[in-house]
Amino acid sequence: MSNTFGRLFTLTTFGESHGPAIGAVVDGCPARLKLREADIQAALDRRRPGQSILTTPRAEKDKVRFLSGVEKGLTLGTPIALVIENACANPGDYEKLIQIPRPSHADYTYKMKYGILSASGGGRASARETACRVAGGAIADIMLRKRWGVEIVAWVSSVGTVDAPDLTGKPIQRRDVDRSIVRCPDKASADRMAGAIQRAISDGDSVGGIVTCVCRNVPVGWGEPVFDKLHAVLAHAMMSIPAARGFDVGAGFAAARMSGSAHNDMFIKKGRCLGTVTNRSGGVQGGISNGEPLVFRVAFKPTATIKLAQRTATYDGKPALLKIEKGRHDPCVLPRAVPVVEAMAALVLADMALLAGNYGQSR
Amino acid sequence: MSNTFGRLFTLTTFGESHGPAIGAVVDGCPARLKLREADIQAALDRRRPGQSILTTPRAEKDKVRFLSGVEKGLTLGTPIALVIENACANPGDYEKLIQIPRPSHADYTYKMKYGILSASGGGRASARETACRVAGGAIADIMLRKRWGVEIVAWVSSVGTVDAPDLTGKPIQRRDVDRSIVRCPDKASADRMAGAIQRAISDGDSVGGIVTCVCRNVPVGWGEPVFDKLHAVLAHAMMSIPAARGFDVGAGFAAARMSGSAHNDMFIKKGRCLGTVTNRSGGVQGGISNGEPLVFRVAFKPTATIKLAQRTATYDGKPALLKIEKGRHDPCVLPRAVPVVEAMAALVLADMALLAGNYGQSR
Amino acid sequence: MSNTFGRLFTLTTFGESHGPAIGAVVDGCPARLKLREADIQAALDRRRPGQSILTTPRAEKDKVRFLSGVEKGLTLGTPIALVIENACANPGDYEKLIQIPRPSHADYTYKMKYGILSASGGGRASARETACRVAGGAIADIMLRKRWGVEIVAWVSSVGTVDAPDLTGKPIQRRDVDRSIVRCPDKASADRMAGAIQRAISDGDSVGGIVTCVCRNVPVGWGEPVFDKLHAVLAHAMMSIPAARGFDVGAGFAAARMSGSAHNDMFIKKGRCLGTVTNRSGGVQGGISNGEPLVFRVAFKPTATIKLAQRTATYDGKPALLKIEKGRHDPCVLPRAVPVVEAMAALVLADMALLAGNYGQSR
Amino acid sequence: MSNTFGRLFTLTTFGESHGPAIGAVVDGCPARLKLREADIQAALDRRRPGQSILTTPRAEKDKVRFLSGVEKGLTLGTPIALVIENACANPGDYEKLIQIPRPSHADYTYKMKYGILSASGGGRASARETACRVAGGAIADIMLRKRWGVEIVAWVSSVGTVDAPDLTGKPIQRRDVDRSIVRCPDKASADRMAGAIQRAISDGDSVGGIVTCVCRNVPVGWGEPVFDKLHAVLAHAMMSIPAARGFDVGAGFAAARMSGSAHNDMFIKKGRCLGTVTNRSGGVQGGISNGEPLVFRVAFKPTATIKLAQRTATYDGKPALLKIEKGRHDPCVLPRAVPVVEAMAALVLADMALLAGNYGQSR
Repeated sequence: MSNTFGRLFTLTTFGESHGPAIGAVVDGCPARLKLREADIQAALDRRRPGQSILTTPRAEKDKVRFLSGVEKGLTLGTPIALVIENACANPGDYEKLIQIPRPSHADYTYKMKYGILSASGGGRASARETACRVAGGAIADIMLRKRWGVEIVAWVSSVGTVDAPDLTGKPIQRRDVDRSIVRCPDKASADRMAGAIQRAISDGDSVGGIVTCVCRNVPVGWGEPVFDKLHAVLAHAMMSIPAARGFDVGAGFAAARMSGSAHNDMFIKKGRCLGTVTNRSGGVQGGISNGEPLVFRVAFKPTATIKLAQRTATYDGKPALLKIEKGRHDPCVLPRAVPVVEAMAALVLADMALLAGNYGQSR
Repeated sequence: MSNTFGRLFTLTTFGESHGPAIGAVVDGCPARLKLREADIQAALDRRRPGQSILTTPRAEKDKVRFLSGVEKGLTLGTPIALVIENACANPGDYEKLIQIPRPSHADYTYKMKYGILSASGGGRASARETACRVAGGAIADIMLRKRWGVEIVAWVSSVGTVDAPDLTGKPIQRRDVDRSIVRCPDKASADRMAGAIQRAISDGDSVGGIVTCVCRNVPVGWGEPVFDKLHAVLAHAMMSIPAARGFDVGAGFAAARMSGSAHNDMFIKKGRCLGTVTNRSGGVQGGISNGEPLVFRVAFKPTATIKLAQRTATYDGKPALLKIEKGRHDPCVLPRAVPVVEAMAALVLADMALLAGNYGQSR
Repeated sequence: MSNTFGRLFTLTTFGESHGPAIGAVVDGCPARLKLREADIQAALDRRRPGQSILTTPRAEKDKVRFLSGVEKGLTLGTPIALVIENACANPGDYEKLIQIPRPSHADYTYKMKYGILSASGGGRASARETACRVAGGAIADIMLRKRWGVEIVAWVSSVGTVDAPDLTGKPIQRRDVDRSIVRCPDKASADRMAGAIQRAISDGDSVGGIVTCVCRNVPVGWGEPVFDKLHAVLAHAMMSIPAARGFDVGAGFAAARMSGSAHNDMFIKKGRCLGTVTNRSGGVQGGISNGEPLVFRVAFKPTATIKLAQRTATYDGKPALLKIEKGRHDPCVLPRAVPVVEAMAALVLADMALLAGNYGQSR
Repeated sequence: MSNTFGRLFTLTTFGESHGPAIGAVVDGCPARLKLREADIQAALDRRRPGQSILTTPRAEKDKVRFLSGVEKGLTLGTPIALVIENACANPGDYEKLIQIPRPSHADYTYKMKYGILSASGGGRASARETACRVAGGAIADIMLRKRWGVEIVAWVSSVGTVDAPDLTGKPIQRRDVDRSIVRCPDKASADRMAGAIQRAISDGDSVGGIVTCVCRNVPVGWGEPVFDKLHAVLAHAMMSIPAARGFDVGAGFAAARMSGSAHNDMFIKKGRCLGTVTNRSGGVQGGISNGEPLVFRVAFKPTATIKLAQRTATYDGKPALLKIEKGRHDPCVLPRAVPVVEAMAALVLADMALLAGNYGQSR
């Protein structure tokens, strides 16, 4: 297993969804950064279940506690360990799953790989693991904001067949995003998205969607060319989020349908550096940030766990009807995926920032 | 810079497009694998420029030579170094570029990051670097085929607005793909794609497209859950290919528009294990291979270097008209991207195979 | 900072000596290994302070708690997180140190590197950090014992100028070692060592020594030639223990004084494999284990913190007399270093075992 | 196999001693460093065989050629690949070894681990591999000298039972070291060491010894506390050199016999920082450089390959008399180990310098 992300600014996460606790160790965070538990708590509260009628009623408080690395509100340069106790583990809900692996879930592959499954819930495959990413990402985010003024903002741009208009050029802030329970800053779209999710709930079904993310004020020169291109590491980070199924940057998949003359971004003087007139490159050229906003999208599949009956098979291969009555799952992961996408983006950028300190001249 | 890919089966590449040579070191390849230079040469010949009227006329022979790691046709378990001399370096072609960074190319970001540029050509950002990936990938591919019967086949599924039908369920082989100069196994689509590329050539323009890749016979249990999910590492690998802009797996971006009941893959007995009736998951669940074929797509943007005049700026920020008369660039990277996608897939799977040897029970 | 050790079987430690807790995350441990908190506790109890009149009276109970990775007494293949609360933090003892860096201690270099110091005690430089190594090493040790029958036994072979006879060829067990409070299995030497430590206590001084370690039943083929030779990684591991100043393997420094004909180990048939008549190589040839017992030594300096007055300087460079009245430090780290050396050896061997699973044929 | 050393400034080596070529890839070297092949050649010439009557007559010219990463005498920030053709491979010399593994050599363990041996010579276990370390280390050395004025000087301080006096406090330069063919800057000792080596040659035997190394002007703050302490990584690097058997830093093994009051280094104002009155710590405290010269020793065993007949066994376990008539091996590796020790020290310091750029404040 590989539960660590990053090379210099690293996040290690641990914990089963129904065990004693989940937690994380952030290593490589510079010393003397102002950091309080409350900063992390605020980030966790945005990801917490039970925020609205659209999310799982599992009422975890997700209260974070620092075990190390911070003293009197300042980081020490030592590893920052944090834990979140599992207040609301409820193994009973999952008993039926012992015989029947949930379709399109990780039950079967974990069982085959490890020969053992966490007694209940998704274990490490549970979306609950992402709370630790949000906590670690919050630390990266604070470093990026304080040192470089980097702003990372993500929002829901599609739910099912409901698409919001392109807002990547607008100065969207997190508070704009949080104004709607679906986390789409376009009010009309948000309402239609909420409707789509409500329908999925009524149907005992689930629905997918897309998160769009913009990172502003990223200095020129972050990203390692060749294998660790900025957008390649972002793709890795984003595709590691549970339920992520697609990633693209800038014009992305649409670029595949374009001609070079329609896609290329012309240079123009901006301040002391060059900028580009358009941003179809999504802020990255040759794998290195070019000073324009980073823009990328992450596609999420509909939640695998649904209440509708499914004709599938037991672990032994016998046909079986799976009907999950209880259990606490979001019918649509999108609203809560927003802070997770932001967190993973922050972790990537923090690592790239430290790496750039060595090789490049961006600092 | 980070010029190494992989954790146990690693590829390190080196070389500027117009320097003395390019090359690679493959480390972690098991001992006593049958391997000849001719195997690698065959793979390189599929990526080589000048194969058809649709690709750059740069006539590199790309002749590979082993320096180490292989003796009497067998690997020694030691690092396999290989070099490809740059027979056809032609720095003169690029002189104009010293003043004007090419739009949507890596010229500007490299210059800002390193303060120095390879005197000509794209240096490390050149597509020429991918020859080393193809060479390294060929070694991984041979290991995967011999030990597990893994078959990796990619093809061009879109060029510009021309889309081939979905062939992921068909038993396409590499020879089927190579039958057309655009590397699309659907004859009718291939002809229309060739037309689209010809038009781009006539216009002095370029065009993007999509590669689809299928990996068959991947055992259950490859991929590390959490951060190094199989599809996350594949995304990293694919997005590190020059001009890649998007990646998705299984139903991918389309999954975002679906309901769970329409997306979930039901289990069914297949041989001694479980399989799935459909394969919208693209062969991976919870980040671990499930025994079904891996299916993913990679979107490529149109080539940034075009002959059409471009109104852009010099490094100093002065408006300038860039008109590239000469230079050797493919108007469409797609046909030659096919073996690169296959090579990166092989490198990911080889690494995951070795990692699975430790933790899992897939072997 | 780099708080992770290992490539496949990894240990990450965290925690300041006087913060809320210390702890560790072990990643890469195979699934379905029998593991109980009591196993770890037993290992920790061997390292715990306050075991005898020769060690610091700091009365930490070092009670370990698993947070993840183990369920119903079996590992899940997921990261095993464990915490040890700091019951007995006592910042007041260290106040004087704020002005005067302790000679030959990490105070000064930490302050210069990080610009901040943990308010009291040694922070990460405290020997307390090694409790986490012992906990992580205990997990590695259990895996090694169960899967390969590996036995790791270390003991104190010198304290100051008192040397025990060479016991590396004797079948010493941990219980033999633990019979004496100095952890030397030779009774006569143990008594003289205890005397040397008592004298150091009376003098307000400290004393160094040497730990010898033997690892039996290590299969042939562990260790990666070239940079990650088995003894090179062992050296790395051992020299990372606080106060370690020297490492040698087999005949070690004495080999430097020998001729080849006197040093070489002749081969002889042993069971189905070859063994060697003598073991001056210490069980490793060309960086790879040869099936003979691994034998190495670790030299420890005398504890830097002493009660005797020291004429040194303040952080500002002013001459100062440092007299540490209180504080809880062992006058000799050797007895408690024994389980730490064993733990680090177990971590190295566990990692090498997993690495060998890929490349070699030792399993 | 793991043929890469370092985290940010990395060296990957490849090549069998009797294959087509050996070589290296240095990654992470900053851009715009002045670097010429001649700089590397000069370093290689110091390690080259056949320099004196005391070393192997194998007359390799070890001519280095850059393949990438350097243009017009400046590094590009891209990987620097270099090759050294094997001009003088002579497989015939080694044929007898096919039946009998050389005692205390890597033949047996390689064969057991990989199931295959390079047809002749030591393959990767040959001292020839260290030429690549010297080449890579030369690049690191140049960077360290130019940016920080770091001076790394090693010399032979013992051969067999001949010990030179302690010169670590003297301003020894490399030219002082190279004045004698044994590379000991103390004339009287050098003569006696040469005599000891001559005696080993006459006897068909070999002899071990010790290299001492001093690194001056290392800034305060290099080295990562906990697992990657400066001296721990140095130990790793040094023990990975063929024939190395022991490592110690500062007072080293002698510290084990001392009391704290005799060992501790008192602080004193030196310029704008603190220094220490004595340097028993060898320039490192808590794993971090303290501004004093780094001082460490490496013990080498006598060369395993000797001309004296050895009563050993075949691979099959049958008793056999091994008498190696020909073959080209140094009777004492010490003189040629000096540049290898310096190279590995440079690689460690270069990596630590780049790592310190991120976390610390030493730059």
